[in-house]
Amino acid sequence: MKVRRAQRWLLKSFNLHGPDNGPSFRYYRTMQPRQISILGVGLLGGSLGLALRNAANDCKIIGYSHRRSTLDSAIRLGAIHQGYEELAPAVRGSDLVVLCTPVGLFPNLIKELAPLLSPGTIVTDVGSTKETVVSIAEELLPVGVHFVGSHPMAGSEKRGVEHAKADLYSGALCILTPTPRTNPAALERVDSFWKSLGMRTCRISPEEHDRRLADVSHLPHALAAALVNLQDPQGLNLAAKGFLDLTRIAGGDSILWRDIFLDNRQNLLQSIDRLKQELDRLASLLDPAQAEALQAWLQAAASRRQAMLEKPGK
Amino acid sequence: MKVRRAQRWLLKSFNLHGPDNGPSFRYYRTMQPRQISILGVGLLGGSLGLALRNAANDCKIIGYSHRRSTLDSAIRLGAIHQGYEELAPAVRGSDLVVLCTPVGLFPNLIKELAPLLSPGTIVTDVGSTKETVVSIAEELLPVGVHFVGSHPMAGSEKRGVEHAKADLYSGALCILTPTPRTNPAALERVDSFWKSLGMRTCRISPEEHDRRLADVSHLPHALAAALVNLQDPQGLNLAAKGFLDLTRIAGGDSILWRDIFLDNRQNLLQSIDRLKQELDRLASLLDPAQAEALQAWLQAAASRRQAMLEKPGK
Repeated sequence: MKVRRAQRWLLKSFNLHGPDNGPSFRYYRTMQPRQISILGVGLLGGSLGLALRNAANDCKIIGYSHRRSTLDSAIRLGAIHQGYEELAPAVRGSDLVVLCTPVGLFPNLIKELAPLLSPGTIVTDVGSTKETVVSIAEELLPVGVHFVGSHPMAGSEKRGVEHAKADLYSGALCILTPTPRTNPAALERVDSFWKSLGMRTCRISPEEHDRRLADVSHLPHALAAALVNLQDPQGLNLAAKGFLDLTRIAGGDSILWRDIFLDNRQNLLQSIDRLKQELDRLASLLDPAQAEALQAWLQAAASRRQAMLEKPGK
Repeated sequence: MKVRRAQRWLLKSFNLHGPDNGPSFRYYRTMQPRQISILGVGLLGGSLGLALRNAANDCKIIGYSHRRSTLDSAIRLGAIHQGYEELAPAVRGSDLVVLCTPVGLFPNLIKELAPLLSPGTIVTDVGSTKETVVSIAEELLPVGVHFVGSHPMAGSEKRGVEHAKADLYSGALCILTPTPRTNPAALERVDSFWKSLGMRTCRISPEEHDRRLADVSHLPHALAAALVNLQDPQGLNLAAKGFLDLTRIAGGDSILWRDIFLDNRQNLLQSIDRLKQELDRLASLLDPAQAEALQAWLQAAASRRQAMLEKPGK
């Protein structure tokens, strides 16, 4: 009885009360999982495994992939301890399951996963879009299995476990996207999990995430690709370093980005419209009579970017 | 008489004949100027001076600037030997004059320069647009003074002589923009001048230059600035490294870019239109039924960029 009361006090003090955190409350307080399942062992999944190994804890790391060769590479590189081509053995006994496939595979993965997980398991992901995955997970995962949407903002234009790096996540921002249905203790645990890998964290709703990321991430990628695709091949010979920097992200994995664009298409369409308006604004300033306003427009961009660089963590 | 005949033979052999290269033909064969005037001692002009000093020749380097403090900094940094706030002493006795101000100042500069130059002087520039400067120079410079348009594709988002670097030009491409009126010997000399600073060179017409650069340089800059300007300040907190890379060039000097945009506005407007078409094409692919075409569009960009990286000199 005393223990229950102490538990209730703790839950209340740390804002950890929620509808279904009763039985598994205790281990939420440990910072690291005892066993983690990484579903999808590419650049992000592989780097997650390496980072966990680097964090020097004794967490067991299980990998899941459709391809045996990927699992073998991941084991050889030290990113996972064991690998399975089937979901059931890949998630058995894990207290944390992280979805690391392209976001387009999340819905099916969650469907297959739902009957395999024990109560108390926490599920999170590394996807670049959040509305779809969060709503599907909240709908399909059984009571007692807690989903917390995560978007660690780390990546590379390279793909595959062979490019995985132990410090990929370190120093970057991880956006957590809780909803009113998110278990508060699971949220804290996922938060501390990313922090243990050197990440900063913040929290916004899945809707806000997808709207804002369309502007700051998906639109830039779309633009970089559009800029490459509109070029005349002969003209590309004249491109300088600035062009290569600007289009770096266009070198990314086309399947990954296809999924992101399709999943977030409503927001991305709005971002594209706003960009077209901004370009129309610029076009209206391309007039010697508007020289001052044109310079102010360019200066505003330079100043805003400079302000970004001066913020901590950049 | 014999000397004249030998000269004519030499001129013909080396394709050096031109309408007005007679008296000064001899020194065109030397690779380096004896005295150079750098008009405008900012990032590009200062770096040019430092590169010349580094090339370990005994060329005398004269700087010109409206501001004494800029000249003093340039002297202190070793970018120039002497500096003048007046054009006449700044160009007296120089065999090579390089225009390094923002392109918007070129027309007036050339007007003031025209009566000050002796026959045989070669004039070139480092401007990012070429049609205007080439046509004004060909119109206003006196017979015997040879203008060759140059666009060394080197720069930085930083401005000012204090950011000048001796290796700014090294390894980059310099586009020369001869016309049918360009003196061939002067063209060769300017070509070898840039090569002596470690640059690669190529030659296209001023019209082709401005059209192609609108696509590969001016549009990317416009896009980077537009992308920053359309952002909601709160959303910018969520921007990752990709956003900073992509917008790096938006940090550039707003006066410099205002001038470039205004000078090349007709081509830039066309590039903006083509980009908007490309974005409309993308918008039409943001549909699950178009998933394959969307992936192909993304993959095309990734592959073209990869091909650029694999070219020499990148």
